[in-house]
Amino acid sequence: MSDVVPPEVRPKPAVPAKPPNVGAPSPSSPFPPQGPGIGGGVGVSAPPPSGIPVPIGSHGPGHPIGHAIGHAVGHSAGHGGSHAAAHSGSHSHTTSHSSGGGSTLLGYIGIDTIIEQMRKKTMKTGFDFNIMVVGHSGLGKSTLVNTLFKSQVSRRSAGWARDEKIPKTVEIKSVSHVIEEGGVKMKLTVVDTPGFGDQINNDNCWEPISKYINEQYEKFLKEEVNITRKKRIPDTRVHCCIYFISPTGHSLRQLDTEFMKRLSHSVNIIPVIAKADTMTIEERQEFKQRVRKELEMSGIEFYPQKEFDEDMEDKSDNDKIREAMPFAVVGSDKEYQVNGKRVLGRKTAWGIVEVENPNHCEFAQLRDFLIRSHLQDLKEVTHNIHYETYIRDLTRMEVCTPYPPTIPKKATCSQSVSQGSSDRVRVRTEQ
Amino acid sequence: MSDVVPPEVRPKPAVPAKPPNVGAPSPSSPFPPQGPGIGGGVGVSAPPPSGIPVPIGSHGPGHPIGHAIGHAVGHSAGHGGSHAAAHSGSHSHTTSHSSGGGSTLLGYIGIDTIIEQMRKKTMKTGFDFNIMVVGHSGLGKSTLVNTLFKSQVSRRSAGWARDEKIPKTVEIKSVSHVIEEGGVKMKLTVVDTPGFGDQINNDNCWEPISKYINEQYEKFLKEEVNITRKKRIPDTRVHCCIYFISPTGHSLRQLDTEFMKRLSHSVNIIPVIAKADTMTIEERQEFKQRVRKELEMSGIEFYPQKEFDEDMEDKSDNDKIREAMPFAVVGSDKEYQVNGKRVLGRKTAWGIVEVENPNHCEFAQLRDFLIRSHLQDLKEVTHNIHYETYIRDLTRMEVCTPYPPTIPKKATCSQSVSQGSSDRVRVRTEQ
Repeated sequence: MSDVVPPEVRPKPAVPAKPPNVGAPSPSSPFPPQGPGIGGGVGVSAPPPSGIPVPIGSHGPGHPIGHAIGHAVGHSAGHGGSHAAAHSGSHSHTTSHSSGGGSTLLGYIGIDTIIEQMRKKTMKTGFDFNIMVVGHSGLGKSTLVNTLFKSQVSRRSAGWARDEKIPKTVEIKSVSHVIEEGGVKMKLTVVDTPGFGDQINNDNCWEPISKYINEQYEKFLKEEVNITRKKRIPDTRVHCCIYFISPTGHSLRQLDTEFMKRLSHSVNIIPVIAKADTMTIEERQEFKQRVRKELEMSGIEFYPQKEFDEDMEDKSDNDKIREAMPFAVVGSDKEYQVNGKRVLGRKTAWGIVEVENPNHCEFAQLRDFLIRSHLQDLKEVTHNIHYETYIRDLTRMEVCTPYPPTIPKKATCSQSVSQGSSDRVRVRTEQ
Repeated sequence: MSDVVPPEVRPKPAVPAKPPNVGAPSPSSPFPPQGPGIGGGVGVSAPPPSGIPVPIGSHGPGHPIGHAIGHAVGHSAGHGGSHAAAHSGSHSHTTSHSSGGGSTLLGYIGIDTIIEQMRKKTMKTGFDFNIMVVGHSGLGKSTLVNTLFKSQVSRRSAGWARDEKIPKTVEIKSVSHVIEEGGVKMKLTVVDTPGFGDQINNDNCWEPISKYINEQYEKFLKEEVNITRKKRIPDTRVHCCIYFISPTGHSLRQLDTEFMKRLSHSVNIIPVIAKADTMTIEERQEFKQRVRKELEMSGIEFYPQKEFDEDMEDKSDNDKIREAMPFAVVGSDKEYQVNGKRVLGRKTAWGIVEVENPNHCEFAQLRDFLIRSHLQDLKEVTHNIHYETYIRDLTRMEVCTPYPPTIPKKATCSQSVSQGSSDRVRVRTEQ
């Protein structure tokens, strides 16, 4: 009968089989390393505390590895109206509990194959990443994006004439490419905003940008509620908006703060200081410090937003990034020979600015942050925070409530499993 | 300046740097291996077809690896009302195009680090998996779940007395555990449904089950639209419902088909034949075939549903699984010594049934399918299909439309980027 299932659906674990570690969820964190009283060293045959079920299953001398088990008990919903709470008479009230004691059986389960399953899915389907660039003309937006993705992925390289005139209004232009690296395919869309900040009167010039961002949310939502069920929805939502600050050496312009203030709640904004080679290292540091202070005083929440740090490790990593922001960058799609190596750079009469040399500018830091460490997080924050904010605002604008008014009540009675308490109470709720 | 960003945010790529492969998205698939006229072997300095931008950037002899670039051009939204389409006068109409020619710059981008970023996130946060077991009493539901997860994770082992009486109504009881394996933490919730099918009159006994499933969707939705923004929502939605078919050797009972028919559109149903050791191999094969035929005739869509196969590879893999379903299983949490090895089994006077031996039963196939190959997919189908179906049905029940009536129009004009065409047209839409 082993031939009925193909070998692909029975993957061999890449890691050697280890005994699983079973613990109880604690109220403080969904996945604490260990709950109270639970340790990998606790033997399975240890007598359970009173009130705790006696482990079933036989464990011979050939099975020396033991660990503890804990659990949380959820609610129980009766049907038909004849109920009696087992341990207490409470209704619409649920608790769960942690406990030591219990047992596991021998062998490998395969929980860690989830990583391989995710990898396989990503390798197969690829992923979408959409980046927007905002800033007035001449700040090197297209060049920076080309430098980031080592390809001619920007609007400028995609067919618009290079001598194109500055438009009289803000336009939104998007170009998509599929880039493959290490077997992973990324559909990259670069959204450019020519005309932004280039007018005599720049009143409301963030509006078409904001409109575009919301349209992508709208489009995604429409797909989500579409009757034709789809497993994978094409994602055109802007995951990241790079805002180019002019390297004035003075301060932010009013348009800069106004734009970032207005948009920071609907998109991940990453401010950068453009064309940083126009400033000396000292000027740059001073300017960065001033910009940081102004951003803080204006209450602008740029990415990575402090409120979304998930734990201390996150906070510590992101604090270092926030303290280094905005990155002062230089872009280039020209290659030069420096010390026998080919590098991307800008050749001047007084030397070559190497864009990926951390002593010359902070391009490499921006790239590592944006692509190599936070790309997945940018996508998650977009989906879980900005997109959800959009939906919430949409529903609040409506006269009627889009979801039945019973939601709050019902949700209260089903918040059972993830909470911890020292009591075990079986609860039944009225139907 | 290299000290401003900590080493963690500048990961070294695990794979050796390879030149990225840049291609154009095609209309048929979001990520085709190669678009027309695009190949990894096309040199960067190949003259571009007419109308295609000349690649910028210099490429010396030290940069022999070339590849092609293609792109899709998205829509452009003007602002203020003064627009003129550049290539044509069309409005609210967008196209994109694929082309050969283009260039890439030297070096590694880091797109494939997305896999590592996902792995790191999963290792850190863990994941939720919620499994429901349905079937009348005595079919070994608790034992099977314990066998699947090699732990005492079921309701029976979690504190309810083993001599508990069969309830007079259908109850819903959930128990949660955190299981860790290979550094990956899974919060497993087992939802049991004691009383199902055990009454004299089993009319509507699927209702409390359906209600529970919907309540979890409701709860998740409420978190999604909650004003307090959360990056990660605890997931109690039922990812998988194992339906236990009695090993009668005859046919499905009416309750079986009724339950699966009614629930198959709101949850992933995996039917299994319980206590398969009561049948000989021949009886089992015959019974399985009959059950498959009856499921098909009743129009029951069990998991993995044919309509959600994403491609031919998916279809071929899943067809083999579907043809082998429902798996005839035996569970056990007792260990025995067989040929010097400790195995999980059931000892009888005429031999030991080894649950993980594919010659004895199909437990291993079920486990491999459920945990090692399709766990992530079960979660995705739950989120992208069943949950979305729930939301759609909810909004349709409402008198007013929850989303603005402008959605269809707007969505039409922004379906730009992922479509391919041979024309490049810059289009501006009225604001």
